Amino acid sequence: MTTDQILHVLYMCATIAFAVTGVLALADRKVDFFSVVIIGVITAVGGGTIRDLLLDAPVFWASDLSYIRFAVLASILTFIAQSFFAHPNVYKLMLYFDGLGNAMFGVSGAMKTLELGFRWPLGPFMLGVITAIGGGLIRDVLTGRKTLLMSDEVYAVPVAIGILTTLITFQLFPELKTEAILGGILIAFGLRSAAIFWEWRLPAWFTSGPK
Amino acid sequence: MTTDQILHVLYMCATIAFAVTGVLALADRKVDFFSVVIIGVITAVGGGTIRDLLLDAPVFWASDLSYIRFAVLASILTFIAQSFFAHPNVYKLMLYFDGLGNAMFGVSGAMKTLELGFRWPLGPFMLGVITAIGGGLIRDVLTGRKTLLMSDEVYAVPVAIGILTTLITFQLFPELKTEAILGGILIAFGLRSAAIFWEWRLPAWFTSGPK
Amino acid sequence: MTTDQILHVLYMCATIAFAVTGVLALADRKVDFFSVVIIGVITAVGGGTIRDLLLDAPVFWASDLSYIRFAVLASILTFIAQSFFAHPNVYKLMLYFDGLGNAMFGVSGAMKTLELGFRWPLGPFMLGVITAIGGGLIRDVLTGRKTLLMSDEVYAVPVAIGILTTLITFQLFPELKTEAILGGILIAFGLRSAAIFWEWRLPAWFTSGPK
Repeated sequence: MTTDQILHVLYMCATIAFAVTGVLALADRKVDFFSVVIIGVITAVGGGTIRDLLLDAPVFWASDLSYIRFAVLASILTFIAQSFFAHPNVYKLMLYFDGLGNAMFGVSGAMKTLELGFRWPLGPFMLGVITAIGGGLIRDVLTGRKTLLMSDEVYAVPVAIGILTTLITFQLFPELKTEAILGGILIAFGLRSAAIFWEWRLPAWFTSGPK
Repeated sequence: MTTDQILHVLYMCATIAFAVTGVLALADRKVDFFSVVIIGVITAVGGGTIRDLLLDAPVFWASDLSYIRFAVLASILTFIAQSFFAHPNVYKLMLYFDGLGNAMFGVSGAMKTLELGFRWPLGPFMLGVITAIGGGLIRDVLTGRKTLLMSDEVYAVPVAIGILTTLITFQLFPELKTEAILGGILIAFGLRSAAIFWEWRLPAWFTSGPK
Repeated sequence: MTTDQILHVLYMCATIAFAVTGVLALADRKVDFFSVVIIGVITAVGGGTIRDLLLDAPVFWASDLSYIRFAVLASILTFIAQSFFAHPNVYKLMLYFDGLGNAMFGVSGAMKTLELGFRWPLGPFMLGVITAIGGGLIRDVLTGRKTLLMSDEVYAVPVAIGILTTLITFQLFPELKTEAILGGILIAFGLRSAAIFWEWRLPAWFTSGPK
């Protein structure tokens, strides 16, 4: 597979994962079905859209509406399936899907920025992070939640480590592009999953606020 | 009138309607006059601006500052008039103006997207919805309200039906453009007004949250 | 110094000032260090980024990553220094830095808009105000604060007066560009500082809400 194809598949999966989180974030509100789908779609394509606006590139879903189609489909299926979930599990589940979407959008966002000729490493790193967390931030703001950044959870650090792993591996071994991408995603999602599962908290000296 | 002229008039009216809602949303806060006008203007042009950024078109108010002028004027007049309103009515009034702006921005946003060559019907439909609700979402976020999407009110469905009506009518009868546009707006605003007046709620199976 | 150089230095200082406010806004939350830096950077470049998107100009930090570097550095230093501050002073301090960033971003944003050929005075004035308050609004929304616009503090009026001063002075005396810019900034920051220090409130007839 070419890098383009890999990025395409990753975006698609991340889009679906984020659409699921958008719908799950509404599991404890009374919100009508159509609004649920809107939130799902905005969450799904929000991060990549912000990145493309900043890069002055055409938004990635304009030329290929399958992103929107999959986001709509994933939102509908999640909405239907949601009635089978008990409440506390739903939020946990959302966190895992959010972590998966973060990892895939973050790494692929960084690689897309790199291919558009942005200087290594600050630009690709930063736009990778924005791609990763943008959709989730919009979801949290629109649904009135505390944004996931505003906590002492280990949230943004895993995706940052994953992106850095990909960028450094690719810089050193340009021929291992696919491996660099997949490795970075695995590391980001693995670390975040561990942080959710064992409820890791960052040490006090690494957090703001009263000590 | 050409379609361009019709769209122009509609944008102008929708701009004014949304500026009014932005100011009315502040009726129960102590906010200074100049900030009120800023919120009014951002609400008024927010949805169309997001659409133009996504379409990579020049923002609609850059080449014709009369949108901004009318938004400023409407904000000032609403600010002055506001002291005559009793509190509970003001919010209701905001909902009606919001519905009117929604309907006009939604239908005209979809038609503008169609004219820029976006594929029928998913692109125009989606960007129509974004144009319709974007300004209101920004208003709700900036004023710290629960966004209007986050309720079981019949909010987004009417404008979706209106946009679909316009798109389908125009697809079948391209010569009835004006009628398609006005019909869609009437349906969207009519349904939303009925929903506000009779306090329609969507059935439980159509909403998320605990049943 | 040429105007370009002056604008460059001003942006840099305003970027640092806003990064500081972003970090100080988190002084009472437990947020991990990396998220703190993200919020700092987004606050710092948010207003100018919105302006550039609206102007369809390349975002100002893309061609010159020193903005990002300084924002990151300022965020880190503020994060470290923060533990020396007592709580009530921190918020006050944030207000002053916010006022300084407002003044510099507002005036320089208006001048940049003017140089890109936008019609005098509504366009430059409006985009100046957006540049000034955009970063702070994003900061308040992401950190879950009431946005600074939503109060009867004298917040937006000082920067508006400063921008107008610069625009009018430069219109009348085009050769006094540097003086016009610095004068507008001094007036905006001076008025805002006085408003913070003496806790000025706008008169009731100038604010919305129950009288």
